[in-house]
Parts: sequence; C-alpha cells; structure tokens
Amino acid sequence: MAKLVLIRHGESTANRDNIYTGWSDVPLTEVGINQAHHAGKLIAELGINFSAVHTSMLKRAIVTANIVMDELDQNWLPITKTWRLNERHYGALRGQNKDDTRQIYGKEQVARWRRSFNSVPPLLDHPDDDRRYAINGILNEPLGESLRMAYDRLIPYWLDHIAPDLIEGKNQLVVAHGSSLRALIKYLEGISDRGIDGVEVENGEPIIYEMNDQLRIHSKVTLS
Amino acid sequence: MAKLVLIRHGESTANRDNIYTGWSDVPLTEVGINQAHHAGKLIAELGINFSAVHTSMLKRAIVTANIVMDELDQNWLPITKTWRLNERHYGALRGQNKDDTRQIYGKEQVARWRRSFNSVPPLLDHPDDDRRYAINGILNEPLGESLRMAYDRLIPYWLDHIAPDLIEGKNQLVVAHGSSLRALIKYLEGISDRGIDGVEVENGEPIIYEMNDQLRIHSKVTLS
Repeated sequence: MAKLVLIRHGESTANRDNIYTGWSDVPLTEVGINQAHHAGKLIAELGINFSAVHTSMLKRAIVTANIVMDELDQNWLPITKTWRLNERHYGALRGQNKDDTRQIYGKEQVARWRRSFNSVPPLLDHPDDDRRYAINGILNEPLGESLRMAYDRLIPYWLDHIAPDLIEGKNQLVVAHGSSLRALIKYLEGISDRGIDGVEVENGEPIIYEMNDQLRIHSKVTLS
Repeated sequence: MAKLVLIRHGESTANRDNIYTGWSDVPLTEVGINQAHHAGKLIAELGINFSAVHTSMLKRAIVTANIVMDELDQNWLPITKTWRLNERHYGALRGQNKDDTRQIYGKEQVARWRRSFNSVPPLLDHPDDDRRYAINGILNEPLGESLRMAYDRLIPYWLDHIAPDLIEGKNQLVVAHGSSLRALIKYLEGISDRGIDGVEVENGEPIIYEMNDQLRIHSKVTLS
C-alpha cells in the first residue's frame, strides 16, 4: 500500500505575528525551522522511501520541504513547486492582523471568511504582477479566494500529478499550507462543506495516509 | 543577452578531508554552507532573475543550490536534479585519501587519473544499487568514469534542457561539481582535451557567462 504524507510548513513570521498571509512569501521563524527538522526526523524513523515531493511556490513550504528531505537523506527526490498547492489567497485581508479584522468587520464575519467553504474575502484591487505566476506570459493570480476556489485549482494537480503515482504504489510527500491541505483533506476523506469547518492542520505535524491502489484510505496517523 | 551562472558546491566533508568523492553523497561542512550563502549574495547583488535551476542528485550540490535560491529570494524556481550533472564517478578511488593514492600508485599515475581527459580510474567491482539511479526500473550507475565519459553523459542534458532556454533569453543557474563543471566549460569554451588539464573551478565561486541567442560567449566573469 502506498503512503501519502502531508505536512503543513513550520511556523512562519506571519503565523507568529497572527497575520493573514495567503500568497505573501514570508519566511519561517527559528521555531518553524525546528518544527521542519522535527517533522523530518519523525518521518525518517518510519523509513519511508518517497518517489516525489510536491510543494507550493511559497518559501515557507519550499524551505520546510528541503529540510524534511535533508532529514530523510533523500535530498535527490524530484520536487515540483506549483501555484496549485499555494495557500488560499486571502485577498485584501493579506497583511492584516487577525484580531484587528475582528474589531473592524466583527467576529462573525471574520469567522465566516476563515472557516466557511464558500465565503470569499474582500478582493485586492489588482494582482501583484509577480513573475513566478506568469505561465506562458499570462499572469495567473487570484485577487482573493474562498476555500472552494482554492480547492477547485488544487484538485486538478492531485488528479494529474499525485494520484497516478500513488496508484502505482509510489510514496508521495506533499508540503503545503493550512488551508490548501484542508482542501486536499476534504477531497481525500469526502468531508462535507460544513464539516471542513472543524478540521485543523498544525504546523510541522505530519499526517500519514496509507492507501490502496484505488486510493481508498486504509489508515491515517498524525505525528507530533 | 542571457546569463548562464555556474557554481561549484561549497566545501564538502570530503573536500575538507582530501578524499575522492565522485558519486558518494557527502554533506557540506560549515565552511561550505557559508560559501553557498556568500555565492548567493554575490549573485543577488547583480539582480539576475533566473527561470530555472539545474543540479545533480548529490546533496552537496542540491543544498548549495537551495541556499543560493534562498539568498536570491527565488526559492520558487523550478529545480531539476539529474544524474547527468553528477560529479565524475571516481570508481575504486572513491573514499581514498588523495595523498595515500599518490603513495600507492605514484604521483604521475594519480595526476593522469585526476587531470587527463581520457584516463579512466580503477573501476568498482559492482554498482551501488542506489534506487535514485534507477530509471524505469533499470539501474544506471557507472563503475568509474574518465572526464570524457562524464562529458559524454552531461552534454545531452545541456543540449536538451539548458541551451534551449538560454537561446530564448532565459537566465539559467547550474550548481554542480568540480569535474562536471570542467566538462561543461570545456564544451562551452571549445577547450582542447589537453587544455582542460589546467582549468580549475573553486568551491562557491560563481562563473557568469553572458551569451547571445546563438550561445556565443559575450563575456565571462568569475566572482569571489
């Protein structure tokens, strides 16, 4: 049976400072770097041989993935960095303190933006024009995303680039973000739009699925 | 004009200990890690935007590449790790101290093995059976290589995966090894089989080529 390991990046400076991040490219804190090493050691103890690593285009996930591969002594694994695994784009909330937004917009509105599957945050006026998101010269940047919008752009990557290798029995490592992993977990476990409200993924705590060749989940273990 | 930047990995434990390495997967020393940061800072000062990074399947090059990308704030760049950029395979000399081999085999023989383009080192009895070099289930490991043999397996990667992007004006970063970079430089500069004897590439000192769209070299600068 193939193993799928999901890891949310270690603590970022924005996690520490309680700030909405989304597609902002913030670094790990020292705590976050240590969490990444710890996550790598936990997986190394299980002796899992991976065939590929998948991550986002954001350094907090990429650096976490590199640290984990180093702890696994599998630095040579192919790594794909894709915008489809990026964190949900938080639109105009980006850069704002979470407590401040509760004061400005009210607790209930903020809870909806953060937890509801369909709620779209206030949008940016214009995209950032970041060259990393130009595909064949065409810029591909959202102005803000609901969790559903993040789900809709993430699942095609799962179907095309992760699921086929798992079906062949090849273990896969995915290092991504709180909301992008919630979206993937929703898909994998068939969780309802309402049910996903209660799902949390902690920084640097690996989730290990064992799956059969029809991608039915045989077991799920979270390490910490 | 497109820029091609070549970097030899920072000092490895084997460099420090004066040991033949080849395809052995040894880590960087603290000195080597600092050299990688320094190389990254030197390139960052030039403000080069890359479109891709190419490295070997060996951690001393991969970790150097990751550190350089972090210093460039271009962690998101696609990185390809290929055995074709691996160091020349040193065969049965691997793991031996360079001074010891001079005593055993004589200075002249060792100089030939190290510097001549065609000289093949003593071969291993059998391959290592390392899963990273299995391509579609077939193991692809040399038992030892002359610099010519390394050249012959490296140039196809250059032609297929680096040159086409340079021709389109996209800057490319290659992080590899002393001998694999000598082989590439031989090709790029049209250096003779004898002439390549005198070419050295230092740990962590970036070489920057500017090339036109026919890949003629317009300038070459080495930073330190």
